[in-house]
Amino acid sequence: MADLHPTIEAFLKVVQSGKKEDLIPLLADDVLFKPPTYWKEWPGKEITARILSHVALIFKEFKYHRTIGDGQCFFLEFHCKVNGLDAVGVDIVTLDDAGLIKLFEVVMRPHKTVGELRKEMNIRTMQDPFFQKLAFNR
Amino acid sequence: MADLHPTIEAFLKVVQSGKKEDLIPLLADDVLFKPPTYWKEWPGKEITARILSHVALIFKEFKYHRTIGDGQCFFLEFHCKVNGLDAVGVDIVTLDDAGLIKLFEVVMRPHKTVGELRKEMNIRTMQDPFFQKLAFNR
Repeated sequence: MADLHPTIEAFLKVVQSGKKEDLIPLLADDVLFKPPTYWKEWPGKEITARILSHVALIFKEFKYHRTIGDGQCFFLEFHCKVNGLDAVGVDIVTLDDAGLIKLFEVVMRPHKTVGELRKEMNIRTMQDPFFQKLAFNR
Repeated sequence: MADLHPTIEAFLKVVQSGKKEDLIPLLADDVLFKPPTYWKEWPGKEITARILSHVALIFKEFKYHRTIGDGQCFFLEFHCKVNGLDAVGVDIVTLDDAGLIKLFEVVMRPHKTVGELRKEMNIRTMQDPFFQKLAFNR
């Protein structure tokens, strides 16, 4: 779909290429990541990039469908599978005045699949030294 | 936000007014409702209107935020509470060529709140003679 912001175009390319090192320059320093699994939000570029790289390994057959935005806020609809269960979601991506991602919020359905995602994310973050250091209280 | 389709404008008014009888004329005969709670979809105007009227009673402090669309597909971001728990969601609303709602899909976060919604919806649909007649196998 036309008229996406260059940051969003670049983000969609990162997702396709899997080159997660290209994600960091698209994120604002104070970016917030709001996951479908918990209400709590993850602050900062490093955590957000790390979370998204874990998610990318859990989501199978991931594909963006309709993508639409108004210059600062974009809705990116995706379909994927988690442990064989179907899911639909929307990445709500908000840019700051510099055109960097300041808020990345993910809403999904159905409940059961998000439960699988939560389980898989817990396993991965518990095994990831980066998150062990955070002593993140969820 | 500008440039919403008249059907979407009318839908937003129905939500504000709570006049659920005004919803039916906005729905296509073969509308599908895809809930955040289950993967299964609900077919038809009567069921969709009924489901939405139950949801309207469960969602507290419901408010639409950013709403955006491209003529046929609209993303309506909302915030609400379910049994005191916060939620964010997006209604993905797709119109048919006649401008009627043919697909109403709801994605939400976080997992825990959607679990509460599922619990509340189960209680309500089990007590609703309309759904008892359906013998709907979820």
